[in-house]
Amino acid sequence: MAVTELQKEREQIKFNPKELNYFLEGSKERSDIVSNLVEQMEKDPVLKVDASYYNLTKDQQREVTAQKINRISRYFEYEFPDQQAHRLSILGVFDPQVFTRIGVNLGLFVSCVRGNGTNSQFFYWTINKGVDKLRGIYGCFGMTELAHGSNVRGIETTATFDKEADEFVINTPHVGATKWWIGGAAHSATHCSVYARLIVDGKDYGVKTFVVPLRDSNHDLMPGVTVGDIGAKMGRDGIDNGWIQFSSVRIPRFYMLQKYCKVSREGEVVMPPSEQLSYSALIGGRVTMMMDSYRMTSRFITVALRYAIARRQFKKSESDDQETQLINYPLHQRRLFPYLAAAYLFSQGALYLEQTMNSTNDRLDAAVAAGEKEEIDKAIVESKKLFVASGCLKSTCTWLTADAIDEARQACGGHGYSSYNGFGKAYSDWVVQCTWEGDNNVLAINVAKPMVKEILQEPEQKGLVISSVSDLNDPAKLTKAFDHALSGLARDIGKVAKTQGYDVTGPSLVLVSKLNAHRFLIDGFFKRITKTPDFTEVLKPLGFLYADWIINTFSSVFLSYGVITADVIKKISSEHFPALAKQVRPNVVGLTDAFNLSDMLTNAAIGTEDGNVYETYFNTVKTLNPPINTKAPYSDALEAMLNRPSLDERQRGERSEEAAEILSE
Amino acid sequence: MAVTELQKEREQIKFNPKELNYFLEGSKERSDIVSNLVEQMEKDPVLKVDASYYNLTKDQQREVTAQKINRISRYFEYEFPDQQAHRLSILGVFDPQVFTRIGVNLGLFVSCVRGNGTNSQFFYWTINKGVDKLRGIYGCFGMTELAHGSNVRGIETTATFDKEADEFVINTPHVGATKWWIGGAAHSATHCSVYARLIVDGKDYGVKTFVVPLRDSNHDLMPGVTVGDIGAKMGRDGIDNGWIQFSSVRIPRFYMLQKYCKVSREGEVVMPPSEQLSYSALIGGRVTMMMDSYRMTSRFITVALRYAIARRQFKKSESDDQETQLINYPLHQRRLFPYLAAAYLFSQGALYLEQTMNSTNDRLDAAVAAGEKEEIDKAIVESKKLFVASGCLKSTCTWLTADAIDEARQACGGHGYSSYNGFGKAYSDWVVQCTWEGDNNVLAINVAKPMVKEILQEPEQKGLVISSVSDLNDPAKLTKAFDHALSGLARDIGKVAKTQGYDVTGPSLVLVSKLNAHRFLIDGFFKRITKTPDFTEVLKPLGFLYADWIINTFSSVFLSYGVITADVIKKISSEHFPALAKQVRPNVVGLTDAFNLSDMLTNAAIGTEDGNVYETYFNTVKTLNPPINTKAPYSDALEAMLNRPSLDERQRGERSEEAAEILSE
Repeated sequence: MAVTELQKEREQIKFNPKELNYFLEGSKERSDIVSNLVEQMEKDPVLKVDASYYNLTKDQQREVTAQKINRISRYFEYEFPDQQAHRLSILGVFDPQVFTRIGVNLGLFVSCVRGNGTNSQFFYWTINKGVDKLRGIYGCFGMTELAHGSNVRGIETTATFDKEADEFVINTPHVGATKWWIGGAAHSATHCSVYARLIVDGKDYGVKTFVVPLRDSNHDLMPGVTVGDIGAKMGRDGIDNGWIQFSSVRIPRFYMLQKYCKVSREGEVVMPPSEQLSYSALIGGRVTMMMDSYRMTSRFITVALRYAIARRQFKKSESDDQETQLINYPLHQRRLFPYLAAAYLFSQGALYLEQTMNSTNDRLDAAVAAGEKEEIDKAIVESKKLFVASGCLKSTCTWLTADAIDEARQACGGHGYSSYNGFGKAYSDWVVQCTWEGDNNVLAINVAKPMVKEILQEPEQKGLVISSVSDLNDPAKLTKAFDHALSGLARDIGKVAKTQGYDVTGPSLVLVSKLNAHRFLIDGFFKRITKTPDFTEVLKPLGFLYADWIINTFSSVFLSYGVITADVIKKISSEHFPALAKQVRPNVVGLTDAFNLSDMLTNAAIGTEDGNVYETYFNTVKTLNPPINTKAPYSDALEAMLNRPSLDERQRGERSEEAAEILSE
Repeated sequence: MAVTELQKEREQIKFNPKELNYFLEGSKERSDIVSNLVEQMEKDPVLKVDASYYNLTKDQQREVTAQKINRISRYFEYEFPDQQAHRLSILGVFDPQVFTRIGVNLGLFVSCVRGNGTNSQFFYWTINKGVDKLRGIYGCFGMTELAHGSNVRGIETTATFDKEADEFVINTPHVGATKWWIGGAAHSATHCSVYARLIVDGKDYGVKTFVVPLRDSNHDLMPGVTVGDIGAKMGRDGIDNGWIQFSSVRIPRFYMLQKYCKVSREGEVVMPPSEQLSYSALIGGRVTMMMDSYRMTSRFITVALRYAIARRQFKKSESDDQETQLINYPLHQRRLFPYLAAAYLFSQGALYLEQTMNSTNDRLDAAVAAGEKEEIDKAIVESKKLFVASGCLKSTCTWLTADAIDEARQACGGHGYSSYNGFGKAYSDWVVQCTWEGDNNVLAINVAKPMVKEILQEPEQKGLVISSVSDLNDPAKLTKAFDHALSGLARDIGKVAKTQGYDVTGPSLVLVSKLNAHRFLIDGFFKRITKTPDFTEVLKPLGFLYADWIINTFSSVFLSYGVITADVIKKISSEHFPALAKQVRPNVVGLTDAFNLSDMLTNAAIGTEDGNVYETYFNTVKTLNPPINTKAPYSDALEAMLNRPSLDERQRGERSEEAAEILSE
């Protein structure tokens, strides 16, 4: 095989991509853990994937996914939660449905029991039973209802206390209250953490959580429990999402999760003083989604950039020997380089969020343990800040990742449309991240509102920040530009909200959330890269390029509040971005190699590490669709159509001139 | 069944949606034709679709699609091309893969033969054989190669003239020259219009077209022809895309399509004086895609708006009886109303483009027939203009339609992710429209370049156009605003291109194409609605709302060139758009009913005409996934995993303390 374009460029790399991976994974140690886990899963015939994965039907995906979970359960028996989390994070790149189908159990069910149950309840339902090793019971998360998604308070399933029997009776009052979308419910789950209205003595105490067994140990449905399969979905067909209806299902009183709210034997309800302490459960999911955003963006930008290096199209002039590599077209760089930068900023953002969450949780736990009221309050303030930041990031980054997959696909032209290059399935699998655990629009509004209120407490920040192109090379000015824009936006939102309420300002609130996320990412990235001097020069252009892209995308905000001049905006496109792209161009292979993605992880015929695009792609297509099958299984029908007698014959001549004559007589 | 929200709102409609449909379809006559065709196909058990369509596997889709084509062939035997085109246009909404699988034959193969062959060749290969009735032969279009998409000139398949045998020898010189993505090739096609380099006496005359039989009337592959299945795709799996390799395949000399270029018995090549006359073949496809854009956008915006009327989420205040309808949230209006408006502007744009194409073609034909050189030149100028406009519109509108499907899906929250609401399949099926027949980015650049050159010939247009909010209500000013922006953009592009070439200006050229498309749509819409006085007042707010949306989206351009003030940009969001949305809100049901989409055409459980969202959706899910199946077919594996003995037992106690003691002795 001839040396490919990609391999030639790889020889020119001026830094060590493996070491750059430490930056992306957070440390050498974590980078090594990830590498080892990838290698292990690549060698495991049950867990590994290849292009044949894209040929599976829905029913096959369901079954194969279950086999994989079974296999993973054996690894989990030897692993600590940290390692399990890393394993799941990697699965999230190459097999997101396995990841999610486990995640509904360990991520949602377990978190719900931990967050809402007492310590004893947590140990009873999860640790003692072996749930963390995917054994004994398999939980699902019963929050969403057919008619209630984002608004948990509106949930209508009821849990009515029957004092005589000392039991709760769980009921689905009407079709709209059917538990819906419940991952794992259709086939796997044995238990469900059910969100239901607590009713005691006819009084509605609001929505609480209950552990409700769905299936016995023979996997037969409990009496009163009706479960169905949600069926085909846009993506993640390997997950057995289901619906659940409860018809007078009785559970013991102590199945209620009662860390905060308790019901006594006599039906006395003790309500929680405050539920603010439970923020952190939601933040964990967001950190995961940030990490997913990094991994998925890095995967597809790698495929698109590798293809762009191999693919040539159009000659610059007739005298040229070869056509031009796609990657050397400025428009192509403009389309793809921002997402390459985004992957780097996402990884940094995810790591920072994770650290902050851990330290905030530790601080809170310590304060709670010590019973220091003032410390608890401070920790809660931190926790709320994190809640806002993570909300902005979850919505902004999951959206951008969907865009990244889509733009990368389009950049591969027709071949992006082949299943075997992974874009189609990945996009369909991905986009639900923009909807679940807080629909991005609703979430953005919810976190932007407190942000705006807080900004309004602070002195106004305004005035021109970026008056010349060189200002774009100053990270401090970039951060300041965002601050001014946010300050201006908040003030305008405040004015409108005062007279018309916040609903009207919805579109602007989404803008606030996005700008805040980008500010967070850009600011954090520049702070971090000064701490990794070996790579500062390689990474800096990525940060500036990302900032250029965002400022350009939201230029109307920056222009409207006089934060930047129209002249600089024009020059971003004509000068500044192209100059940065020129710095990035020679590093593309190194920067993508640094993601350390094996061919199993990218799983794209046109995006393999050796850059041998056409041969690999052609062989994949031939292997999965052997050309020896020259006729379709349904060929008879086609042939009968093509070779059918003429219309006149088939009409038995009944519309012929002869017939006309006879029949007109 | 209780009266639904949708039905209540329907009773309030102040205009006749059926009559408004005449505006959308172009005339009462065409509206009636479409209604009748829809009814006919709904009643046909082979052609009709319902939610079960979304459960089909790839192989089932292939087979069912072939059955449908067979059925359609019987309708075609009684229909004129006009009716056939209407039938296909409707199929494009509810079954795009059937549409395309016929389209590669009638749209691409036939057009290629018509465009490049003599009249006799056209009649021989298509009419006489019955192709137009899907009988006799089935053509495919052999242009794209594995390594060559957008650049037709770079094609590498060869057609070498063998003078002795008076034949062409067709060859695929290497893997990259394999014909790729060829719709219909894998299973259906009997003939292919092959694009190949004409080689005579060792000289390369560039790319010409040849009719090459692939299969005989027994549907067996011809010797030297290797065909394979491309396999799974992101969407349109019902189409049998294939790859083709030619290994010394011999065809008679007269199989070359020779309207323009001829090879004589002696090997003398007569080249065409100019190939400009063949523009119109490409424009036809673009008109179709504009119409598709209208139909697909109208379909999904209808589903999302109906759902938004039925769905309630969050109470404005605790004292409210009911939660608020999604459609009454300003953010929701901001997300969806622009696409509702877009559907109206797309329909108008498509109709106008179609008329212009027809009149331009007639003019050209008349001029050619009369041999009037001056008239021919004038007609060619017209044709070129149309070529540019249609290119801008194809790329802009197919992109926006993808956005429309996606935004509509997100607006339906989790339920948008269910296959049974159609978004997933429609998106995956649709997006290839952004890539085929001119990748949108490449196409946009190609048409924007001559546009810029033309604008640069005209006097500069600059200066503030929209200085107050009321200016946004003046269609003439809106058009002028676009002209000024385009004039400014063109000048900046020209400056950069002068020193660095056009490639660098790629991103700006795409902008030019988009702005020109929107200018065309907005200008045309306002001109047309003044001619339909009955609906002017209903339609006007849609035009202004669309303009607001576009100006806001591209505000940085309008601001940079001083066409609008920052104050007006802010007021679009805070005042002008909300006021227009208020005007549109009461008409939503009427405006969507006017699309005249039957429940088969929308094929979305949450978007039916009666607005009975939850019942319909739940019944669909239950019908397609009967809840009587309480266990998965693979349940044994799951149960074995959950009920497996403990790790210690399965390790035979070999890691127990007892073992440790013994083994350490």
